[in-house]
Amino acid sequence: MSDIRSQALACRDAAPLLAMLDSTAKRALLADMAAALERHEDDILAANAKDMQHAAGKGVHGAMLDRLRLDESRIRAMADGLRDVAALPDPVGVVTHRDTLANGVVVERVRIPLGVVAMIYEARPNVTADAAALCLMAGNAVILRGGSEAVESNRAIAAALHEALHAHGLPAAAVTVVDDLRRDTMVELLQLSDIVDLAIPRGGEGLIRFVTEHARVPVIKHYKGVCHLYVDGSADLTLALNLLVDGKASRPGVCNALETVLIHRDVAAEFLPRAAAALRERGVDLRGDEATRELVPDASMATDDDYAAEFLDLIIAVRVVDGLGEAIAHIRRYGSDHTEVIATSDEAAAQRFVQSLRSAVVMVNASSRFSDGSQLGLGAEIGISTTRLHAYGPMGAESLTIERYVVRGRGQVRHQESRIG
Amino acid sequence: MSDIRSQALACRDAAPLLAMLDSTAKRALLADMAAALERHEDDILAANAKDMQHAAGKGVHGAMLDRLRLDESRIRAMADGLRDVAALPDPVGVVTHRDTLANGVVVERVRIPLGVVAMIYEARPNVTADAAALCLMAGNAVILRGGSEAVESNRAIAAALHEALHAHGLPAAAVTVVDDLRRDTMVELLQLSDIVDLAIPRGGEGLIRFVTEHARVPVIKHYKGVCHLYVDGSADLTLALNLLVDGKASRPGVCNALETVLIHRDVAAEFLPRAAAALRERGVDLRGDEATRELVPDASMATDDDYAAEFLDLIIAVRVVDGLGEAIAHIRRYGSDHTEVIATSDEAAAQRFVQSLRSAVVMVNASSRFSDGSQLGLGAEIGISTTRLHAYGPMGAESLTIERYVVRGRGQVRHQESRIG
Repeated sequence: MSDIRSQALACRDAAPLLAMLDSTAKRALLADMAAALERHEDDILAANAKDMQHAAGKGVHGAMLDRLRLDESRIRAMADGLRDVAALPDPVGVVTHRDTLANGVVVERVRIPLGVVAMIYEARPNVTADAAALCLMAGNAVILRGGSEAVESNRAIAAALHEALHAHGLPAAAVTVVDDLRRDTMVELLQLSDIVDLAIPRGGEGLIRFVTEHARVPVIKHYKGVCHLYVDGSADLTLALNLLVDGKASRPGVCNALETVLIHRDVAAEFLPRAAAALRERGVDLRGDEATRELVPDASMATDDDYAAEFLDLIIAVRVVDGLGEAIAHIRRYGSDHTEVIATSDEAAAQRFVQSLRSAVVMVNASSRFSDGSQLGLGAEIGISTTRLHAYGPMGAESLTIERYVVRGRGQVRHQESRIG
Repeated sequence: MSDIRSQALACRDAAPLLAMLDSTAKRALLADMAAALERHEDDILAANAKDMQHAAGKGVHGAMLDRLRLDESRIRAMADGLRDVAALPDPVGVVTHRDTLANGVVVERVRIPLGVVAMIYEARPNVTADAAALCLMAGNAVILRGGSEAVESNRAIAAALHEALHAHGLPAAAVTVVDDLRRDTMVELLQLSDIVDLAIPRGGEGLIRFVTEHARVPVIKHYKGVCHLYVDGSADLTLALNLLVDGKASRPGVCNALETVLIHRDVAAEFLPRAAAALRERGVDLRGDEATRELVPDASMATDDDYAAEFLDLIIAVRVVDGLGEAIAHIRRYGSDHTEVIATSDEAAAQRFVQSLRSAVVMVNASSRFSDGSQLGLGAEIGISTTRLHAYGPMGAESLTIERYVVRGRGQVRHQESRIG
């Protein structure tokens, strides 16, 4: 048996133990994991220093290197993250429906854990602790396959988490950190369909496409967030401007940042020059269609690719549209099913926008930057799904469970002829 | 572009039209489809006669041939099935959660259709109408790939459904019936991950494994139902006997029939001879372990394979166990995550049985034969899932939808520095 298969089997064997922990036990475990991270701060920082040195030696720099870096405050934040997860409502055991049928049989739908969740991710070592915590809170065992850049950091974090598992009489395999980071091994992991219930890839589009193409286990993911703001003819233009600046400029490198703004022709002349000035003040480049460039002459010409792009940068694509119908058609064509926003004062327009689009998050007069598990009240998120199955949009602890049926009777049978006594 | 891809694209283009139909329009459409089936009874029977003749010529007979056969009453039942689906609650638009966050933003989770559902199935032509109806009621477009034995029947049924779609101004592609039944074409369909949101295979284990192995789109399925009854030491033995006879003998060829009974050693001497007599009277063969054969000498010896088997026949595997723990271990080892039943008078034992098993349906003192969408109150079912993702257990119209986020604000932004006005 391959190493990864036997590691995964050990993880699967741990799953029923986690599924049966009550909320109190899970919360105590997560609190002890948080304490263990803080207690092992020196080990984790030393391991991280090795990763940083190795990455710098390979020429990694800038944002990429920063993502890898840990310091005291980031370790503290990681530990606090575990404590936040421990404070979340426990999704396991929640009864979502209850019915008494005509024959007296009581049918409940009750949440249980998925089983074994595999996380595939890149540089950020904090994902190791965050993902483990959410999976455990939902009663799952987890297999963590991080990036090679963070291998030492992830190992040190895992060692701390394992110490807490051990103290609670639970096997280390409940949080399995994959050591063998060869691509072939990842592919093998992604094909263990008798063991892994769900794979969640997080990282760049390349990683996510690789995972999706090679997986035989279910995958929930999003490739990218091409988020749109449509400024309706009836919009409060100051409100729309606030949504635009917040959506584009507050943090351009994240998936819920705006990439394209569509503007109703009737308000373009009033809105666009103001918008261009506010965006330029924040260093944002505009790429627009002809109508945009008539109003904002220094905007560059937008190509078809620009409208499909997730810039993750201080760039925005702009287009003037004839109305709501054209905005909807544009978003259907270029969107990524992530998050779309309408600024409008017209309730009917809002309703039509919401109903015509099937994106995971659709917003009326609110910033796309709220499209995030903690902002939307989930407490923490393990990822955002644009896979229209199981979970759609920000995924919290509940997304790591499934509803099953619990049926209680007093001896009811389906065919009365079956009765003996 | 291949034919199947262009057919699937046309189906995808129809999906937004279906997603936007309100409940009244969907109900009227389904009622008209039912009427069209009845109006075209002669055409459908003529087409079915061709399929039957062809199948008989190929040596198909018995239950297999019966599954293919349509007659007046079966067409009437199909039409009534559509009317039943039309009477179901519409899952689309249902608000499952509503929260007002501290910043005043209102977050709702609202059900929308999945999009495009592909059904892959074998002989029964009624699936063509049933599956189409449930998919449409949930606002989805559907691609139906039936078995080659039923090709003429499926085509005639589809023609009737298309007549109703046409009368409602909807494209025939909303219910796409695949004509090209080559395996390669099915594989191509199963790999259209940019078009098909979910594939549901229904039929024998061979078909389902083929679909799972070749799919790049998400698949929800169950391979088989190895359902267990555990008779606890505290069970009311007459109640247990009723569950056993109903579970095994009322309809042995279905997936919610019992395949194995586990009996607590303390009650084996009292229960087993009675059970054996009642089962034998209904033609059921027993295959047991040593302890069983001491009490029921004419039971044959059970092999390891018997405990893993879905007999779909008048055969049952029997084992005497030392208690609940051994019963749970047996089910974990041999079960298929479908349906398990405990007969017990001990609430603690019932609780432990439910919590220790992760099967889709777990029952206390009720017959496994209730593990069915219409029996559990779903109205109709499109299948049963033992895939622990999205849907688990009997799947009704709700399983063909997904919750997404609808967020409403009054101009709230995440970073207050973004405010211009």
